[in-house]
Amino acid sequence: MVADHIGNSGVRILARTCTTAGAIIPAMKVSELGEFGLIDLIRSSVARYDDCGRTPWREIVVGIGDDAAAWRADGQILLATTDTLVQEIHFNLDVISWEELGWKTLAVNLSDIAAMGGIPKYALLSLALPGDLQAEDISRFADGLMRLAGEFRVAVVGGNISAAPNVVITATVIGCSRGEAILKRSTACPGDLIAVTGYPGLSAAGLEMLKGRAISDPEMSSVLRCAHLQPRPRIEEARILTEQGVKTAIDVSDGLVADLDHICECSKVNARIDMQRVPVHPMLEANFPNYRDLALSGGEDYELLFTADEATLARVNQALNCPVAVIGEIRAEESVKRVTVVDSRGDAISYRKGGWEHFKHGVTKAYLA
Amino acid sequence: MVADHIGNSGVRILARTCTTAGAIIPAMKVSELGEFGLIDLIRSSVARYDDCGRTPWREIVVGIGDDAAAWRADGQILLATTDTLVQEIHFNLDVISWEELGWKTLAVNLSDIAAMGGIPKYALLSLALPGDLQAEDISRFADGLMRLAGEFRVAVVGGNISAAPNVVITATVIGCSRGEAILKRSTACPGDLIAVTGYPGLSAAGLEMLKGRAISDPEMSSVLRCAHLQPRPRIEEARILTEQGVKTAIDVSDGLVADLDHICECSKVNARIDMQRVPVHPMLEANFPNYRDLALSGGEDYELLFTADEATLARVNQALNCPVAVIGEIRAEESVKRVTVVDSRGDAISYRKGGWEHFKHGVTKAYLA
Repeated sequence: MVADHIGNSGVRILARTCTTAGAIIPAMKVSELGEFGLIDLIRSSVARYDDCGRTPWREIVVGIGDDAAAWRADGQILLATTDTLVQEIHFNLDVISWEELGWKTLAVNLSDIAAMGGIPKYALLSLALPGDLQAEDISRFADGLMRLAGEFRVAVVGGNISAAPNVVITATVIGCSRGEAILKRSTACPGDLIAVTGYPGLSAAGLEMLKGRAISDPEMSSVLRCAHLQPRPRIEEARILTEQGVKTAIDVSDGLVADLDHICECSKVNARIDMQRVPVHPMLEANFPNYRDLALSGGEDYELLFTADEATLARVNQALNCPVAVIGEIRAEESVKRVTVVDSRGDAISYRKGGWEHFKHGVTKAYLA
Repeated sequence: MVADHIGNSGVRILARTCTTAGAIIPAMKVSELGEFGLIDLIRSSVARYDDCGRTPWREIVVGIGDDAAAWRADGQILLATTDTLVQEIHFNLDVISWEELGWKTLAVNLSDIAAMGGIPKYALLSLALPGDLQAEDISRFADGLMRLAGEFRVAVVGGNISAAPNVVITATVIGCSRGEAILKRSTACPGDLIAVTGYPGLSAAGLEMLKGRAISDPEMSSVLRCAHLQPRPRIEEARILTEQGVKTAIDVSDGLVADLDHICECSKVNARIDMQRVPVHPMLEANFPNYRDLALSGGEDYELLFTADEATLARVNQALNCPVAVIGEIRAEESVKRVTVVDSRGDAISYRKGGWEHFKHGVTKAYLA
């Protein structure tokens, strides 16, 4: 039961627990428990108060633990997601412009709606800001956000402004599904092939560049900067996925392997990735010796990672207007290590973990290094 | 045009402006522009990209500038609001318990739904947390939040967790209206009476106590602590308001006069408050020499401030199960000073401004004093 509550954080917790309100709580720091342990903690508190037989609970289609929540409301399925960007954790104002920050604030939320196959419609914006910022910067921020909002026809309808010692920006996006079609994390089946759009790792490479790694080619520099600071949510591509019958997807925010691990956890399956089939951008391979780690663990790419049977994937491949690669397959749940990456001989290979697991690995200091 | 863009911030801005993306932006700090100037700034950026003839814009019933946004979706009106609590700005962990913080996080959002006359249904929660917090504290936070959620049948369906140097908590609540009835800020008419539920000022008095003011009576101490740390959203009372035909309301978050000023600005009217009719809790009057300032400017009471004609108010008074007082009347827009407070002889009286206007008056340091 305890292991059930604390998910990823493993056995160590069993030895040190205390109780509050009848629940067993790990006696450890937030940094030790980690992001996913915390989500499990909150989920268990929520579960103690749920009253599933009544509205609004019985209308819930997807609750805590997917890219967005989904519920039925008068014949349609509504979607809602929220995401926060924290100064010095997610961004550094020395390298990101206020326009780019506005764009990215909305982009990461639209990507969550894309990962559900949905249509984004309305956005709320909560800004916590130090008083010594320039008003002009906030205007530029709003312009960057609105440029993306306009492109995807998202109406900004409200929000909140507060003083704060450092910049913390939260956006919430509300949208709806395309009919009954929803992409979920929990529907992957053994035998499904695994596919990904675009080139994972470009965003993390962009971060390395912004932290000081010299890139001489201006075109490459521009591609990397854009990949990290102005990601393009795959809303249109997700529409094609739902139209072609795909059921399972996630957006690559934590990293390719980490996000595939989320699918495996939710679907109770294992996955195997063929390293040689992982799409690595030629510029990445030519300039970053660690390109494999970047592609497998980089994070913040906001590409779509999805699974489907071979025939469905063939149709998707035909219909998509962006690069898409089959990188492996879903297998029955046999191992606690949910995702295995293999080389051309089928031997498991190791890679540097990282991605964007908060609190752990010092990755929260990504910009402070 | 400029004055139109920057609203509250007045003429001073005209002398110092610069332009970005074709818009005229005040060349000043966020702290000088203030919360409401910033909202106007963002609203003007949003307006440049709006495409009102198309969906989803044409479905919007209430956009930026009310307690919550409202839009039509398949025959119902949906409501959404978001609010953020920032450590050292809105709360101090030395005095608020984690359970109380959880309660208050949801309460301030439910109060915004109440101020629209709506039914809250779903909540999203975004936590930005330092890694050295105890996991147990986060569990207590979730329990406090869920206690209130359970009471009002709100389902927590998702959210986001991030590392951060200090605690910043954002909740978003999505709900719906009761049929076509919505309470707005923009519908007050000259001749309307102004009424308020409960006893404004108790929350600010609670804050004074928590900052060190000695209160010997344990019952009073408990009332004040609860008023500030565990406010009760007036969801049920708002239902009665809509049933009895009230159209205009706001919740008292910035302070009685400041929130009445918001109604006046949105409705293009003036207001007059009779100080002697403002309900002051006997314990407040007996223990706080500044009880008038607290009642007029205190903020964070989350009472309902509303306007209606005399007959409607009589019905409301009959139906409500909480204290309610008529405190003044709405008048035609004649003065730039939108709200006047008068004594028993009808003479205007002055009072200490304050409330919760962020960035200004040093009130953002409420807990740091």
